[in-house]
Amino acid sequence: MKRTKRLAILGSTGSIGAQALDVVQRTHGRFEVTALAGGKNAHKLAEQVRRFQPRVVAMADAAAARTLRELIGSGGPEILDGDEGVAAVAAHPEVDFVLAAVAGGAGLRSTAAAIEAGKQVGLANKESMVLAGELLMARAAAKGVALLPVDSEHSAIFQSLAGHERAYVRRLLLTASGGPLRTVPADELPAVTPARALKHPNWSMGDKITIDSATLMNKGLEVIEARWLFDIEPRRIDIVVHPESIVHSMVEYVDGSVVAQLGVSDMRGPISYAMAFPERLQLDLPPLDLSRLGRLTFEPPDPARFPAFTLAYRALEIGGTGPAVLSGADEGAVAAFLAGRCGFTRIAQVCEEVLDAHVAEPLHSVEQALAASEWGRRQAERRVTR
Amino acid sequence: MKRTKRLAILGSTGSIGAQALDVVQRTHGRFEVTALAGGKNAHKLAEQVRRFQPRVVAMADAAAARTLRELIGSGGPEILDGDEGVAAVAAHPEVDFVLAAVAGGAGLRSTAAAIEAGKQVGLANKESMVLAGELLMARAAAKGVALLPVDSEHSAIFQSLAGHERAYVRRLLLTASGGPLRTVPADELPAVTPARALKHPNWSMGDKITIDSATLMNKGLEVIEARWLFDIEPRRIDIVVHPESIVHSMVEYVDGSVVAQLGVSDMRGPISYAMAFPERLQLDLPPLDLSRLGRLTFEPPDPARFPAFTLAYRALEIGGTGPAVLSGADEGAVAAFLAGRCGFTRIAQVCEEVLDAHVAEPLHSVEQALAASEWGRRQAERRVTR
Repeated sequence: MKRTKRLAILGSTGSIGAQALDVVQRTHGRFEVTALAGGKNAHKLAEQVRRFQPRVVAMADAAAARTLRELIGSGGPEILDGDEGVAAVAAHPEVDFVLAAVAGGAGLRSTAAAIEAGKQVGLANKESMVLAGELLMARAAAKGVALLPVDSEHSAIFQSLAGHERAYVRRLLLTASGGPLRTVPADELPAVTPARALKHPNWSMGDKITIDSATLMNKGLEVIEARWLFDIEPRRIDIVVHPESIVHSMVEYVDGSVVAQLGVSDMRGPISYAMAFPERLQLDLPPLDLSRLGRLTFEPPDPARFPAFTLAYRALEIGGTGPAVLSGADEGAVAAFLAGRCGFTRIAQVCEEVLDAHVAEPLHSVEQALAASEWGRRQAERRVTR
Repeated sequence: MKRTKRLAILGSTGSIGAQALDVVQRTHGRFEVTALAGGKNAHKLAEQVRRFQPRVVAMADAAAARTLRELIGSGGPEILDGDEGVAAVAAHPEVDFVLAAVAGGAGLRSTAAAIEAGKQVGLANKESMVLAGELLMARAAAKGVALLPVDSEHSAIFQSLAGHERAYVRRLLLTASGGPLRTVPADELPAVTPARALKHPNWSMGDKITIDSATLMNKGLEVIEARWLFDIEPRRIDIVVHPESIVHSMVEYVDGSVVAQLGVSDMRGPISYAMAFPERLQLDLPPLDLSRLGRLTFEPPDPARFPAFTLAYRALEIGGTGPAVLSGADEGAVAAFLAGRCGFTRIAQVCEEVLDAHVAEPLHSVEQALAASEWGRRQAERRVTR
């Protein structure tokens, strides 16, 4: 019998968090939900508390924490609040594994707290690596912490690197669905509405990441993430558009051999892989049936229509605070787009302008990375409304 | 610097052997060709002797060995002959790695000799595993010998298993090109000529294996090979037709994750992987460009038009001498087809009849396996000409 793994799920009220809890339910007794943390959705967290009986919970939003206290009443778990509360959950002494699934830059502090506490970390918060990948990888190495990717692409690369000598890696090939606008002609893109850009063909995700998928900025941010997670030069990370999202990503070796990981488009696969590593769980998800799918297609990404991904390579070249600024600028620009305050193609333009305006500094702290991201976000807000 | 690996190439005058020598030439100094063995083609072996200066060579055919002695003259390598000569080459004390690339059942004795001599073996002779997989795997385990697959499919599975726990394997998925007759309607198959069946779309191989590819018997024999090489139950080995031959094979794990190995259709990839294992060599072959390929397609195998592969599962169920008899029957039937003595669809029918007529025995020696195969071959010859 395997020992029950004690989980903290940060961002449990979000899409990844909810799917992680589904994995817990499908694998009776394999995991214990020791701690949960959410942002603002007190009602959803209250429901999760009733079902999973964690020992401690946190809400980033103090008002939501108060609501949660009212909903739960006495006799329930300890309820913390604020970023400090979420960080305390991440570092809780009774937790073995932290699923870092807080959305956006807000996730960085709790990821850092989990690493400092020496927890095994499942990394679903992209911004942790994008804003401060270099710092976090150094701290993880110092603490002997395994950072397990949860993004389907990075999980695929992790699985395709297993058992093969790193010295023989030639390229990482990140696959991209191409998003909901892949086939939209260039001249129609400026008029694309948020509703249209939110219709992702394969993955059900949050709004921000779905828009990032439409602009291909998401793939750019994943390039940055891969650069740090796998300690590989950016020029050796390529993107290939693969609309069916079945090949989750690939590794090309020096002899031309390519190892790939494939699966149905269901985030419970990579989530459970990180949660159970080095085990694999039987989730009874529908198996991949390539004969029924019939075909997988591939095409190069189009930087003319979707230039956002190229900015990620530029941000990495700039280095230091560059990627954090790009991430913040994108948060600001996407929020503006979703609020109807700018057009679709303006997102990448604004990001580029902000990156151009930034004077990068070497990165030495998480707080500095967050400040750079916040600067990028505000710069984007300002430029959007011009 | 890596130590020069000393090779014996058995079947050097064949297609796989010649490609292995090309790998040697592309990786200056990495390998030394210590020994070569061929069947009948004395002129080709003489040319290889001049170029690679081996210390010992053998020809299975005694007359060909005499011709070779005349061609080479004095001062050249020691020249052995007969099956014993080839086996002596396989067991030569100065050899580190034996590439077992003799075609057909004839390869079994020399593979066994290499294993008994404790050599690392690159296994390109399918029949070794088909005829006597259970025996050879037990001997390899006893001798601590690594058997490295050279078939592109088995190399792909080997690469897709690396670094992953065997306990979590759900299925092996062997890909099949479908061969040159994949799209030919059932009613046209009986009249297919050898010339038509020999036109393989992706791979340039010997005649026997190309016909086996057209009947899908080749895939059946690979199922048998995989069953022993990877010690997995036949019901957990599936076949997927994949006409582009880019995905060389796959492993499905219990969590639904599929790990695959891909590459261009060039046998120098898997040959070099086995030769250099655990290293990977830079061969400067054209890289895989999925965006340029555009699409990969998949379909189930059609047992109605191509029933031969189903016989492999039956032979495994029969056990003992069953697979050896099937392999021999196929050799006999394919030879008859190539000689114009039977129709295309008759190949699988004859194999089935021979398998039905066989009273299997438990397998306890290589000689017994060879005798069973020879019985199958003669039975097929007899039935074909009826």
